[in-house]
Amino acid sequence: MFHKLITKQLNPPRFLLLIFLLFIFIGTCLLMLPFATTEPVTLLDAFFTATSAMTVTGLIVVDTGTAYTLFGQAVILVLIHFGGLGIMSFAVFIFLLSGRKLGFKEHVLITQSLNQNSIGGIIILAKKILIFSLSVEAVTFALLSMVWVPAFGWKDGLYASFFHAISAFNNAGFSIWSDSLSRSVGDPIVTLIITTSFILGGIGFTVIFDIWKKKRFKDFSLHTKLMIVGTVLINVIAFSFVFWLEFYNTNTIGDFTIADKVKAAYFQSVTPRTAGFNTVDIGALNHSTQFFMIILMFIGAGSASTGGGIKLTTFLAILFSVSSFVKRKEDIEVFRRAITDATVVRSLAITVIGISFIFVGIFILDITEDAPFLKIVFETVSAFGTVGLSMGLTGDLTWIGKIIISMIMIIGKVGPLTLAFSIATQAKIHIRYAREDILTG
Amino acid sequence: MFHKLITKQLNPPRFLLLIFLLFIFIGTCLLMLPFATTEPVTLLDAFFTATSAMTVTGLIVVDTGTAYTLFGQAVILVLIHFGGLGIMSFAVFIFLLSGRKLGFKEHVLITQSLNQNSIGGIIILAKKILIFSLSVEAVTFALLSMVWVPAFGWKDGLYASFFHAISAFNNAGFSIWSDSLSRSVGDPIVTLIITTSFILGGIGFTVIFDIWKKKRFKDFSLHTKLMIVGTVLINVIAFSFVFWLEFYNTNTIGDFTIADKVKAAYFQSVTPRTAGFNTVDIGALNHSTQFFMIILMFIGAGSASTGGGIKLTTFLAILFSVSSFVKRKEDIEVFRRAITDATVVRSLAITVIGISFIFVGIFILDITEDAPFLKIVFETVSAFGTVGLSMGLTGDLTWIGKIIISMIMIIGKVGPLTLAFSIATQAKIHIRYAREDILTG
Ligand SMILES: [K+]
Ligand SMILES: [K+]
Repeated sequence: MFHKLITKQLNPPRFLLLIFLLFIFIGTCLLMLPFATTEPVTLLDAFFTATSAMTVTGLIVVDTGTAYTLFGQAVILVLIHFGGLGIMSFAVFIFLLSGRKLGFKEHVLITQSLNQNSIGGIIILAKKILIFSLSVEAVTFALLSMVWVPAFGWKDGLYASFFHAISAFNNAGFSIWSDSLSRSVGDPIVTLIITTSFILGGIGFTVIFDIWKKKRFKDFSLHTKLMIVGTVLINVIAFSFVFWLEFYNTNTIGDFTIADKVKAAYFQSVTPRTAGFNTVDIGALNHSTQFFMIILMFIGAGSASTGGGIKLTTFLAILFSVSSFVKRKEDIEVFRRAITDATVVRSLAITVIGISFIFVGIFILDITEDAPFLKIVFETVSAFGTVGLSMGLTGDLTWIGKIIISMIMIIGKVGPLTLAFSIATQAKIHIRYAREDILTG
Repeated sequence: MFHKLITKQLNPPRFLLLIFLLFIFIGTCLLMLPFATTEPVTLLDAFFTATSAMTVTGLIVVDTGTAYTLFGQAVILVLIHFGGLGIMSFAVFIFLLSGRKLGFKEHVLITQSLNQNSIGGIIILAKKILIFSLSVEAVTFALLSMVWVPAFGWKDGLYASFFHAISAFNNAGFSIWSDSLSRSVGDPIVTLIITTSFILGGIGFTVIFDIWKKKRFKDFSLHTKLMIVGTVLINVIAFSFVFWLEFYNTNTIGDFTIADKVKAAYFQSVTPRTAGFNTVDIGALNHSTQFFMIILMFIGAGSASTGGGIKLTTFLAILFSVSSFVKRKEDIEVFRRAITDATVVRSLAITVIGISFIFVGIFILDITEDAPFLKIVFETVSAFGTVGLSMGLTGDLTWIGKIIISMIMIIGKVGPLTLAFSIATQAKIHIRYAREDILTG
C-alpha cells in the first residue's frame, strides 16, 4: 500500500505532510456531516477544528461541547489519537495486522515519524507506545471518574472523564467545557491527574521506556537525563514565576487562598508546554505572565512525544552550545558526555525555521486582525507549539486569520524541519571551497 | 597608563565595559552642570542622555534641542564621537601622541574593540578610520549646509548641519529637533545625504577600506562581498515592505505624492539599521510595519562600524548555516567560499545572548510600564540595537524603565558577547567526554 506511493518525488518528509493533510481532509468532511453538529458550521470552521484536533492543538473557533454532537466529538477524539501518537505508529499496526513485512523505505518513513535515529526495534517500540498510551489513558479515565461521577452523575461524569483523559494524555487541550477546566481550579485531585497525564504524554516515549528499562538515573541515556532534570527545573522556574507574578492579580488567583493559588499557579505553569488546558482565564493574566508563557509555549515538550514546540532538548542544546562558547570550552559537555556539533546545528535549524514561520504568521495577522500585538503573538506561538492556549483571539479571527493559524498548527505539528526538508531539494554538487572567516557581532 | 590597569582580574572585555561606564559617568556629571541645561534635569535623565549619546542610540527622555544648552549639546556630540568610533581608536591616538609603543595587552584590547582578528596594522587602521570619519562628516556638513543655510539662516543652518552630520555618520540618531528630521521628509537632498552618511558609517570600516584598496568586486574579501550584497538586498526588501504597507496609511505617507511616498518609505526603511532618525511618526506606522522594523533593528548594521544590532553578517551566517543544513550540504558555501563552524557558533552565541537580554528587558518593562506590548518590544529592541527609534514610550518611562533601557543600550553597544565574556570565567579543566546524541525537534 505505502511503498507504491513512495517514489523519488515523494520523499519521506513530503509523504508525512501529505498523509497529515489527508487525515485533516477526512476529518473536515466528517465534521461537515449534518449529524456531526448541533447547528451548521462553515467549511472553514470544520477545517479549523479538524486541523486543531489532528495537530493536538486545542484552539477552537466554535465551542466543542455545544456545537458538536457526540458523533462530532468522537471524530475529534479519533483525530486527536491519530495526531497525538503519530500517524506512523498506526501505520505500523496496519502493517502488522496485514501480516506484511516492512520494506526499507517504510522503515525510513516510520523512523522519521517517531523521530528515532535507528530503525531497529521500531515495531516493538510502536507496540509499547500503544500499550503505554492506552494504559495511562485508562488510569486517567478511572481516576477522573472517581471525582466527576459523584459531581456530574454517571453519564456526564463518565463521558467527561473519557474525553478529558484522551485529550490530556495526547496534549490536545480540547475540552467539552467552554472555560476548559476552570471549574476544577481548586480541585487537587483533578489538577494532579490531568497534569501528570499530560506530562507523561509530553516527556517523550523513549524517556519513559528508558526509565522503565534501566531504573537507575546514572544508567539513563543522556537524552533521558536531560529530559528529567530539564522538565523538573523548567517547571519549578515556571511555577515560581506564575505564582509570584499573579499573586495579587484579582482577575486570576489574587483572591484565592494560598492552597488554591498554589494549585492554579502549578496548573498554569505546566500547561504551556504544551497541554493547552487552563484553569484560570489566560486573557486575564498579567502581560509579564503572558509573555513568559509565550517562551514556554515555544520551547514545548519532549521529542517523540504527544507534545509540540521546538522541544526542550532542542532549547537546551542551544543553551549548552552558547554556554560552552562563552566559557571557551572545546566540547559541549553535559552530564559527563559531549553533545555533537551536528546536534547543535540541527537544533539551530529547527529554532530558526520555527521562528521564521512564527514571524511570517505574526506579520500577516498584524495586517489582517484588529487585535493587540501581544494577543497576536500569543495566538501564533500557541498554534506553532500546538498548545491551544489563547488570550481570546481565536473566536474573533478573520477568515484569513483562521487559515494562517491552521497552517501554523500544521507546520508546528509536522515540524518546521520536516517541512523544510520536504520543500528543499538535496544538494548534488560536492565542490569544497576554501574556508574564509567573516566578522560577526 | 593603560597597562597598569590591566591585571588578570581585569580582562579585556571587562576593561572595555569599565571604560565605557567611565565615559558615561563623566558625561552625566557634565550634563548635570547648571550651564548645560536650560531647566534643571534629574540625575537619572542626565544619566539616560549620556548613556544614549555614548552608545549612539538616540532615545531621549528630554528634548535635546530645548532642554540642553549649546554646552550640553556639545557634551552630547563629544560622547557620540567617542561612542561611535569606538573608544579604542581614541586610545590608539593617545598612545601615538604620547610617543609610547603598544604592549601586547594593549594590542589585544584594541583589536577586541575594533572587532579585528589580527593585530597587525591596527594603528594604521585607526588613523584611516579617523581620517575617513572626519572626511564623511565634513562632506555631510557641507552638503547639508547648502540646504539648511538658505532655509534657516547662517547661524541656525550651519549648526543644524554640523550637529546632524556628526549624529548621522555615527548612527547616533540624536536631533536638535523634537520631531527628528520630519521637516525634511519631502526633501530629496537631505534624505539622500543623511541616509548615505549613516549607511557609510554603518557598513563597517573594513568594508570601506577593502573597497578602496581592491576596487573590483571579485577581489573583495568574503566579508565585504556579503556586506555589499546583503546591505543592498535588505534595503530593497525593507523599502518594498514599508512602501506597500504604508501606502494607504493617512497617518504617515498615505496622503503624500508618489515621489514623497518613495522618499519617506526609503528613509524609514534604512533608518532602523541603526541610524535612528525618522521623517514620519514611528508611532503612527501600521503594526505590521513596526513589527518588521523590530526585526531590522535587531539585525542592525555592519561589524566594526558606528552602528549596532547583532550585525548583518551575524544574521546571514545563521541563515546560511540553516540553509546548508536543510539542503544537506557538508559546507556552508557563500560566494565560492566556506564559512567556518566557529563563525556560526559565534553568531549563534551573539544572537542567543542578545535575545536573552532583550527578553529579560521586555519582561521587566511588562511589569513596570503601563504600555502596550508592541511599544515595549519596540523600545527594548531599539535600545539593544542602539537604534533610537521609538513608538513614543521613552518619554513616559518610569524610573525603573529608564534604568532598564539604559542598561540595554550599554549591553547593545558593548556587545552581548563581550559582556558575556567579561562575566564568564574561562574553563580550566580539559577532560574530553564521549560524544552522545540527543533527540531534538
Ligand atoms: K495542545
Ligand atoms: K542610533
